[in-house]
Amino acid sequence: MSDDPRLVERDQSFMQICLDLAQQAEGRTHPNPMVGALVVDAHGEIVGRGFHKKSGTPHAEVYAFEEAGERAKEGTLYVSLEPCCHFGKTPPCSQSVTESGVKRVVAAMVDPNPKVAGQGLAQIRQAGIDVTVGVLQKEAEWLNRGFISRITKNRPWVCLKMALTLDGRIADRTGSSRWVTNAESRKKVHQLRNKFDAVLIGGNTLKLDDPELTVRDIPGARNPVRVAIDSRLELKPDSRFCTVETGARTFLLTLQESMHSLSSTYPQAVELVVLPATNANVNINSALQFLAEQGVNSVLCEGGGKLAGSLMQAGLVDEVYWVVATKFLGDREAISALQLDSSVSLADAWQLKSVTTEMLAGDIWIHGTL
Amino acid sequence: MSDDPRLVERDQSFMQICLDLAQQAEGRTHPNPMVGALVVDAHGEIVGRGFHKKSGTPHAEVYAFEEAGERAKEGTLYVSLEPCCHFGKTPPCSQSVTESGVKRVVAAMVDPNPKVAGQGLAQIRQAGIDVTVGVLQKEAEWLNRGFISRITKNRPWVCLKMALTLDGRIADRTGSSRWVTNAESRKKVHQLRNKFDAVLIGGNTLKLDDPELTVRDIPGARNPVRVAIDSRLELKPDSRFCTVETGARTFLLTLQESMHSLSSTYPQAVELVVLPATNANVNINSALQFLAEQGVNSVLCEGGGKLAGSLMQAGLVDEVYWVVATKFLGDREAISALQLDSSVSLADAWQLKSVTTEMLAGDIWIHGTL
Repeated sequence: MSDDPRLVERDQSFMQICLDLAQQAEGRTHPNPMVGALVVDAHGEIVGRGFHKKSGTPHAEVYAFEEAGERAKEGTLYVSLEPCCHFGKTPPCSQSVTESGVKRVVAAMVDPNPKVAGQGLAQIRQAGIDVTVGVLQKEAEWLNRGFISRITKNRPWVCLKMALTLDGRIADRTGSSRWVTNAESRKKVHQLRNKFDAVLIGGNTLKLDDPELTVRDIPGARNPVRVAIDSRLELKPDSRFCTVETGARTFLLTLQESMHSLSSTYPQAVELVVLPATNANVNINSALQFLAEQGVNSVLCEGGGKLAGSLMQAGLVDEVYWVVATKFLGDREAISALQLDSSVSLADAWQLKSVTTEMLAGDIWIHGTL
Repeated sequence: MSDDPRLVERDQSFMQICLDLAQQAEGRTHPNPMVGALVVDAHGEIVGRGFHKKSGTPHAEVYAFEEAGERAKEGTLYVSLEPCCHFGKTPPCSQSVTESGVKRVVAAMVDPNPKVAGQGLAQIRQAGIDVTVGVLQKEAEWLNRGFISRITKNRPWVCLKMALTLDGRIADRTGSSRWVTNAESRKKVHQLRNKFDAVLIGGNTLKLDDPELTVRDIPGARNPVRVAIDSRLELKPDSRFCTVETGARTFLLTLQESMHSLSSTYPQAVELVVLPATNANVNINSALQFLAEQGVNSVLCEGGGKLAGSLMQAGLVDEVYWVVATKFLGDREAISALQLDSSVSLADAWQLKSVTTEMLAGDIWIHGTL
């Protein structure tokens, strides 16, 4: 990287535009990463922009070079992820870079995909093009935390969102959770669903709440992949999970021993998946691995307390939205937000990091990572 | 009140000084209210200041007039509470006002004490002095919420402070609460204790935590009255509650049926108080009424979960500090922050009002009123 602070600042400012471009496709690119690209000409003017919109469509660089045309010559390509060097659904971008005439490439991060992993940039360097890597790397890694997780850990990034009272209850003792949090918070949850590849819930939540798990009242939104872990296969064929057409895949994860409950009236759209058991429940690691195999980069888990507890205990929660309604239930029999059966001491409690809080119409949104 | 915005602003600005003066004695004036007073001369210059420091010492007005001397003539007295009109431990202030030569009195609020209740101001009006009431009234009422509660409800103002995890646990399943929150938060709790007339805990907290309930590491601090509800009289004579000399009164509230457990080794400093029972526990209303009779205006309740739940259910919590450590215990057997045995629906949940949040070294401090 250059030591000239003005150049560093210029690189960061162009890279930020790449990240903003990339983010426009948040939740839409899986199994691919989000990528944004800019072509800046020899005079420092932006002459091409692009971002990857969806799997099967051109990569970000293609759009940026298309717009730039001849003006790419002697210019710089900014790109939020290392250009690919392999034939996938589209031809390798490293080739289009070397053919574009740019004399410099600035990338935020190396592609963690072992099919790329620095080889794309190596090819570009070999063509005599100057390469800078690591500009806004942390920001780029955060943007593609889902893709990185799937590639490096073979499981999606897991964000746990729970709506609870100040005393840690997600529902009253009857199981009713309507409504813990306010309308503004529930609307913000739809914004979250719109950004995650998939949403995930447990069997009790499926049974008690009968949720649609769709994105509502957001212009231009699309629905996420819907996933429910239903170890006992208690789902009713007339539930919203079965009957609502979302345009996205719907998975019901269950156990072989529960398949006798299978109703012939389940719609074909609900894909039943039999997974291994741990303590008579779907093994949570297997569930996430299955989702990774389906190309799901990021999952928003919306409860309930048992699933959240299992994920926490297995060390599978990466990010948390804790939506706290400023009210008290008080009842010791009300449903807890995390329900592990094993003893945890304060010394072993899971510590949330990079915590931020925000008030939303009276609810407190707490965000952090684990 | 005047309609001239400049006059209104001037009155408010002087009254704010009175409130700030009054607050210097926070936690030190019980059974009296906190009061601050200013004498402003005919040119608008502050010539006298005073605040009530402690029961038995002169009232705020006395100090202010003493400092002002002859310069009070034709001036204005600002006072955060209506001047008294009765002989208590000190002579009535209404008299010193009429003798001072001021031509105007501005009071934030009428004294809710039925022995005063407007009569002080009436006497001042009758002496031909102009009277304005209600300047920064809400702020003055908040400052003296304890005194007002004791006078009008015959119980202290109750502030519930709980330290808990994000999943609503105040201790792990062994009962250990060391440490839920961080050192900075624990230090801030000492600041709170320094401002409340009394601190209150339940029997389990007394037994498990063996707390001192003193104010530590704050220069100029004094200790609050210490109160524990110990229905089973399980307190050990060698506990910190019994052995630490605090310079303030210490009450142990219990039931007649538990008095057989009384140890002869309890120090005289622990005042044993027998109160009526409700469901084999000290009746919480009786406990607060007893404290009001001892002149306690404000109480900081520091748990545990059963006492907090009982106070909540009885509608006796006025103010809340919810100190949330950004960690998860997860264990469903860990100790809950509120432990009612009865069913509460979401529609009946207690709603916190005027909520504010603040991060303190990683802990989240949530404050509000009920």
